[in-house]
Amino acid sequence: MEKTKKFLLPENELPTKWYNIMADMPTKPMPMLHPGTRQPITAEDLYPLFAKGLADQEMNSTDAWIEIPEEVREKYKIYRPTPLVRAYNLEKALDTPAHIYFKNESVSPVGSHKLNSALAQAYYCKEAGVTNVTTETGAGQWGTAMAFASKAFGLELAVYMVKISYEQKPYRRSLMQTWGAQVIPSPSMSTKAGRKIITEHPNYQGSLGTAISEAIELAMSTPNCKYTLGSVLNHVSMHQTVIGLEAEKQMEMAGEYPDVVIGCFGGGSNFSGISFPFLRHNIKDGKKTRFISAEPASCPKLTRGVFQYDFGDEAGYTPLIPMYTLGHNFAPANIHAGGLRYHGAGTIVSQLMKDNLMEAVDIKQLDSFKAGVLFAQTEGIVPAPESAHAIAAAINEALKAKEEGTKKTILFNLSGHGLVDMTAYDQYLAGDLVNYSLTDEDIAANIAELEKIIK
Amino acid sequence: MEKTKKFLLPENELPTKWYNIMADMPTKPMPMLHPGTRQPITAEDLYPLFAKGLADQEMNSTDAWIEIPEEVREKYKIYRPTPLVRAYNLEKALDTPAHIYFKNESVSPVGSHKLNSALAQAYYCKEAGVTNVTTETGAGQWGTAMAFASKAFGLELAVYMVKISYEQKPYRRSLMQTWGAQVIPSPSMSTKAGRKIITEHPNYQGSLGTAISEAIELAMSTPNCKYTLGSVLNHVSMHQTVIGLEAEKQMEMAGEYPDVVIGCFGGGSNFSGISFPFLRHNIKDGKKTRFISAEPASCPKLTRGVFQYDFGDEAGYTPLIPMYTLGHNFAPANIHAGGLRYHGAGTIVSQLMKDNLMEAVDIKQLDSFKAGVLFAQTEGIVPAPESAHAIAAAINEALKAKEEGTKKTILFNLSGHGLVDMTAYDQYLAGDLVNYSLTDEDIAANIAELEKIIK
Repeated sequence: MEKTKKFLLPENELPTKWYNIMADMPTKPMPMLHPGTRQPITAEDLYPLFAKGLADQEMNSTDAWIEIPEEVREKYKIYRPTPLVRAYNLEKALDTPAHIYFKNESVSPVGSHKLNSALAQAYYCKEAGVTNVTTETGAGQWGTAMAFASKAFGLELAVYMVKISYEQKPYRRSLMQTWGAQVIPSPSMSTKAGRKIITEHPNYQGSLGTAISEAIELAMSTPNCKYTLGSVLNHVSMHQTVIGLEAEKQMEMAGEYPDVVIGCFGGGSNFSGISFPFLRHNIKDGKKTRFISAEPASCPKLTRGVFQYDFGDEAGYTPLIPMYTLGHNFAPANIHAGGLRYHGAGTIVSQLMKDNLMEAVDIKQLDSFKAGVLFAQTEGIVPAPESAHAIAAAINEALKAKEEGTKKTILFNLSGHGLVDMTAYDQYLAGDLVNYSLTDEDIAANIAELEKIIK
Repeated sequence: MEKTKKFLLPENELPTKWYNIMADMPTKPMPMLHPGTRQPITAEDLYPLFAKGLADQEMNSTDAWIEIPEEVREKYKIYRPTPLVRAYNLEKALDTPAHIYFKNESVSPVGSHKLNSALAQAYYCKEAGVTNVTTETGAGQWGTAMAFASKAFGLELAVYMVKISYEQKPYRRSLMQTWGAQVIPSPSMSTKAGRKIITEHPNYQGSLGTAISEAIELAMSTPNCKYTLGSVLNHVSMHQTVIGLEAEKQMEMAGEYPDVVIGCFGGGSNFSGISFPFLRHNIKDGKKTRFISAEPASCPKLTRGVFQYDFGDEAGYTPLIPMYTLGHNFAPANIHAGGLRYHGAGTIVSQLMKDNLMEAVDIKQLDSFKAGVLFAQTEGIVPAPESAHAIAAAINEALKAKEEGTKKTILFNLSGHGLVDMTAYDQYLAGDLVNYSLTDEDIAANIAELEKIIK
């Protein structure tokens, strides 16, 4: 009998609502605080920066289900529903009794899951009468997603791209420009924040923190302009739940239910997207699925960080966020999985971690690429260096199942492909990459400093 | 009512047979000739070079339907059936009454339709007990497809990659290496043909002709080794008919039948793949669909070439092929659609063209990129520069329908995405690209020379 490899949903099964896990959490996250007053912030505090619809979703969503606007669903249809795939060829290579499934978000035209939130954010900006939007991008995945989403909803986008990425990842820049966005290497002379840092450090290669400051400043000083952000925030994670909601139906088509759900972890949005819809059945229906976030060993906020209030950005402009963090001044090693180089985790995931509703593992850089190459050679798709962390974690679980001789159903999120990141594979194949290790002392010192800043 | 954008076939509707149009052609193509004896060549003549199953398909296929081996179908399931998509957003941008559909072959893990034949060729090599295979690649699409296909069937692959592409398209090289292939810049010191040309022209940047010679030489001098080719030949076009066979069922799901079918044209394989299954209904059932090949204005073999016997390669090693050609010594301008820079058309397409069963149009480079950018901005997918020629032709047909105020159903093949070709878009957006024009005198002179060679 022929085996089914891909489980496809028809378009009319595209989710009509996002899932807001906040409504079902046994312990709600602590509030974000205004850095000056130390009082909980409100949606109104966010209105100057974010489109109203998004600020309201961030702060005031109490319902478990939030309607997806029809215009967003129409754009989702360009690539959604995405396939759920049984990784038979990988299973065979591992000789494991485990069944491995992956949700293939790499089929989005921008190559990653980021478009799920970018389209929603562009829609709410458009709806609010906004004409111009700004954002920042590090590795470039979020910037490309916002570039296409802005074009799709008729918005003008300015992207501050970390200067070193602007130079090292020219294809990402070209993609954004092809979709009509203006891309500015950061630091730039177009903002006060940029000018200041260029003046002080003429050769500064940029950081996500600086790029955020520039994007925020431009949004605040431009009429009809709002800022957008690609991870960490609650509304971003909520938009990503279309991943897990589709996967839930598709696992049913496959006649299985996952014992383990895995996502790589940067700010948390793709992990949240694949996990939260299944996690609700742990919370509400007594299911016992394990949820594993796979973070890089060089940026181990969930496995080795602390839970406390910290800033979301390097410069300390954001509200104080209750999060697992390595300290907002933590400088992660220059690994190729640029999307995972973030010091903290969003409030929801942090609370879930604290409540033992999920787990975290760390993956070394060389192990992530080893897993990525095996996946490419068996399943065909060259994964993004970020997604390769999820694959490595899935392989570890599959090998454990083999050792224990137990059947296990593993589901991971393939958040994106690596076609625009081939330099990283080149360096790996040439033996030029290394593992970065962090001593406990390094981490403790960084956190101690943090505790002095945030009393 | 919600509109359906993507028409998806379940895996059990994957075609079980390839369509061999040769069986239904009103006039069969003239035979290929041995360059020495000028006698028709036989399958046996091809056995030293090609796996037996492929040589037999090339020369001895009389049935209209050829079974697709189950092992090939299993690998096809990694990405097939591919979606048929209604380009609503493009239609809207053009304000046309035409309905535009495209078959999305860019979802293959190698990014193009080339994998449809690569998997079949690797399978027949494996079946014949072959352990090593060789091929050449110019722009890199075919080489990447053979790299993954070889890995999928456990073969060792050596790819001769035209030296200038090897240097200018490093991502393609990386992809091949990630899938485990050995990639050699051509000309190389590993073959007599390569050594000769390097000795005579130390700075020679390579050509497809030289790379073919090297790949053939290595295959002929290595035990258990065969050569593979990505276009032009009959068996390659036949493997590509899975595209049109799926599209036929999907157009039925959409409740329409194409008035026009369009493919870009290099050697002919993707055009054949989308066209032949529909063309059979013109031949057998009196349908009146138009079939349009879109070739670059700088390499216009079908629109401005002659029909006569010519060599398939630059050096004149292949059999003499009855084809529309600009002369095997024709040097096309250095356009970015590298996959369309070929002097001739395969025997089947040439005969169909001669019999007025299809049409050809030529597209200028700047028009192809203009179409490519509009497509990216409306439908999201950045097309390969090759595929942008088909898009430009489809847009022309849609605008004609608008002018005439007629409804028209257009189907084109999106043969691949352009994510690894962003340099080309950079140059287009910067205004650095040009149109290349060919005078009638240039073409006539080249063909006159050809007629002296091949009497």
